[in-house]
Amino acid sequence: MNYRMIISLLGMVLLLMGGFLLLPCITALIYGEGDLAALFATLVLSVVLGALLTLCRPGEKKRLVHAREGFIMVSLSWILISLVGALPFYLNGAIPSYLDAVFETVSGFTTTGASILTNVEALPHGLLLWRSFTHWIGGMGVLVFMMAIVPMSGESIYLLRAESPGPSVSKMVPKMQTSAAITYGIYIVMTIVLILLYQLGRLCGWGEISWFDSLCLSFGTAGTGGFAVRCDGLASYSAYEQALTTVFMILFGVNFSIYFFLVCRKYKLAWQNSELKCYIGIILTAITLITVNLMTTGGFFSTVGEAVHHVAFSVGSVITTTGFGTVDFAQWPEFSRTILVLLMIVGACAGSTGGGMKVSRVLILFKAQRAEIRRMIHPRAVEIMTMDKKKVEKSAIQGTSAFLIVYCAILIVSVAILSLDNFGTETSVTAVMATLNNIGPGTSAIVGPFGSYSAFSPLSKLVIIFDMLCGRLELFPILLLLRPSTWRRQ
Amino acid sequence: MNYRMIISLLGMVLLLMGGFLLLPCITALIYGEGDLAALFATLVLSVVLGALLTLCRPGEKKRLVHAREGFIMVSLSWILISLVGALPFYLNGAIPSYLDAVFETVSGFTTTGASILTNVEALPHGLLLWRSFTHWIGGMGVLVFMMAIVPMSGESIYLLRAESPGPSVSKMVPKMQTSAAITYGIYIVMTIVLILLYQLGRLCGWGEISWFDSLCLSFGTAGTGGFAVRCDGLASYSAYEQALTTVFMILFGVNFSIYFFLVCRKYKLAWQNSELKCYIGIILTAITLITVNLMTTGGFFSTVGEAVHHVAFSVGSVITTTGFGTVDFAQWPEFSRTILVLLMIVGACAGSTGGGMKVSRVLILFKAQRAEIRRMIHPRAVEIMTMDKKKVEKSAIQGTSAFLIVYCAILIVSVAILSLDNFGTETSVTAVMATLNNIGPGTSAIVGPFGSYSAFSPLSKLVIIFDMLCGRLELFPILLLLRPSTWRRQ
Repeated sequence: MNYRMIISLLGMVLLLMGGFLLLPCITALIYGEGDLAALFATLVLSVVLGALLTLCRPGEKKRLVHAREGFIMVSLSWILISLVGALPFYLNGAIPSYLDAVFETVSGFTTTGASILTNVEALPHGLLLWRSFTHWIGGMGVLVFMMAIVPMSGESIYLLRAESPGPSVSKMVPKMQTSAAITYGIYIVMTIVLILLYQLGRLCGWGEISWFDSLCLSFGTAGTGGFAVRCDGLASYSAYEQALTTVFMILFGVNFSIYFFLVCRKYKLAWQNSELKCYIGIILTAITLITVNLMTTGGFFSTVGEAVHHVAFSVGSVITTTGFGTVDFAQWPEFSRTILVLLMIVGACAGSTGGGMKVSRVLILFKAQRAEIRRMIHPRAVEIMTMDKKKVEKSAIQGTSAFLIVYCAILIVSVAILSLDNFGTETSVTAVMATLNNIGPGTSAIVGPFGSYSAFSPLSKLVIIFDMLCGRLELFPILLLLRPSTWRRQ
Repeated sequence: MNYRMIISLLGMVLLLMGGFLLLPCITALIYGEGDLAALFATLVLSVVLGALLTLCRPGEKKRLVHAREGFIMVSLSWILISLVGALPFYLNGAIPSYLDAVFETVSGFTTTGASILTNVEALPHGLLLWRSFTHWIGGMGVLVFMMAIVPMSGESIYLLRAESPGPSVSKMVPKMQTSAAITYGIYIVMTIVLILLYQLGRLCGWGEISWFDSLCLSFGTAGTGGFAVRCDGLASYSAYEQALTTVFMILFGVNFSIYFFLVCRKYKLAWQNSELKCYIGIILTAITLITVNLMTTGGFFSTVGEAVHHVAFSVGSVITTTGFGTVDFAQWPEFSRTILVLLMIVGACAGSTGGGMKVSRVLILFKAQRAEIRRMIHPRAVEIMTMDKKKVEKSAIQGTSAFLIVYCAILIVSVAILSLDNFGTETSVTAVMATLNNIGPGTSAIVGPFGSYSAFSPLSKLVIIFDMLCGRLELFPILLLLRPSTWRRQ
């Protein structure tokens, strides 16, 4: 194990954290609500500690990194930024318990959006911005960002593979650094466009959103996170602002290589993408089913238009694993709640900022199952599985099956531990699903869109923190960290 | 598709059904409660229709059967015996709705034990015995029985593969017919031993069970079914009778080849079986966890001995997918209920009469996942998976993964449809789990061990019937039946 490489990389991540902390520091300076000290102290700590750790960087010849180190670097980086990122909340006293502060920060970086706060409006503006900003940082991945700005050698492919969501990593261009830079470029441009569109709405009189709220909501939407800055989530914003958020949540759930294709004018490649078609199909089907269910049950919305508006928001929020809420879908009938839970599992597209299993994994699993049935009837036939006219490698199918197995196993053990708190099956199950898939709210009243995770026991909170990290890093890097043989000399 | 072969086989199955119906007819004759007419009419119908269909049997040269026909034969046989087996209940008027009668019969043959009856004690004795006898017939498989008594040609391996539980079929001896006969021999002997032990208890004064009850309970235990003959399940039987049932439920959940090894004095082979070790380990762990949970919560049992007695019964009942109840575990705290749901999923051993995913499948999935993690770190290493010192074939791993995928898919769609009835998440989820795994009772009050499935809508009942059949035939045969291309000419 190349410890010096790992330590120096952690140092670089800390330096980057210091840079990111500048934005909330400036906000705290503007609003002057006493949160500057905590934020600035964390900034200084990150920079000093980071600078010290980078001194460990070994000479040119000893920079060789294997797959194992790559995964370990990614897991440790995420744990480190969560522990450091939680300091401002704890030092300021806004969140008195350090475990709760870490919970909130992990929830932020993993773009889950599950909160232990019961009154977010009481938080000073600097901390509130930092809370939403963690979504934006975590959404596309802190190591991908580093790759985009720091020239790196052999380790980069392993880092990208471990941090990027989806069953396989597709480089947009042969050079890894360029690929990372393009991804972040698209990400930044889209975020800025969203901020400007919020403000355009204000100029046109379609809403009254402030610059501060625009920034925070844009960070939450872009990272598909879900932390809001008002206690009632997005319920009190204007219809224009809600609809705009719906559209952009769904856009940020699309594989970013589609946007790259569009920029390169390869419209056909973008349009023929089977994951995209499937994603849109699922969204439209879910909106239809839930709207029909709500309108036939009655008592929820007076017009179909109003129903579609809020159902589309909720569906977009859940499938992209954002977790914003305009209405309390925990109150909807059981069928609608079940559909939402299914969307939680499916999740967004691979290569997006969204979580969940990813549409492409579901597609691969579905195809693998069909191939298996055919193999039962024709035991000697050779089956070749394709997706978008490219052959799906055996290793991708195996990896996806293993993903499903591990996913089920983590889900089961987590639910068993959470059930010790005795909040009821729906709460335990959907709390685990909502955090393992990085959504945020579950579908029961306690953990619903207007609920809070503060009632859980410390043990359950630890399990949820573990689940959020597992969900964001797609299970294996975190599991590898816990495996004794990873640390054995070879 | 060899239609004549399929039709003639269905005829043979019907003839067999006629034979099986003799036992309840005799019972009805003894008790004289007016159910003889309905039972005898069904017997005559089965024999006449069966004799007509067997006339279709093609000449020696046209008896060739492929895998596809084998699966279709098995699915159609099971649907046919369910439709015919439901007639006595319907004709007698004991169950006024034919759908409900089919539900009860499918639940019987698939050894699920989920009942739509709210008062079983009102049923005449002939029908009550037929209801329990369906468990015994379905437990080891009606086609395996046919194979044991009728000499068959090429089709038998496909039939056995489709009807036997577990990821792979192990023949005990090279000849298929002998293998089926040995299995049924062990099955019959163990059932008779259980009946005699119940009666021995009565002679010794440890209980007051009648011959009729002994027969019905033995059928339910042997098939790991779960239909009881009293409204309070097994709660009002003596401690000896309950403990005896616990032991035999667990014994019938063991792979029958273990007993074959014991008969052949291959003790080492039996003892080293990793599935058996894992099965016993899971049972002991579950009993410990639930007992601790119940004793620390308090209010359930006054002594540890009493707790262990009832917890062991419930654990044995759920993991072997029998579904008998001595206490209402739907009232237990959430953690204990969650453990029970996990046991439902795992199920019994392959090659037993129990349902669920099977312990060996869980073992294969667990090993496949570990191999996958190793493959991530050492991408070029060759991995060979073994179980009981034999190599696990790639096709078995793929088949098991496909099983998990299809299992999750059926689970999800079924829960979504059941949720339209709005009985709450725990009811919908555990009702589907309890029927897809052929257990019977779920863990919520409505479908719990002392509840009934009568409240569900006809659509939900159809879905549950489908799930029970899927569970008993291990998913694929039934799915094949629904696949349009199965019926296309090739």
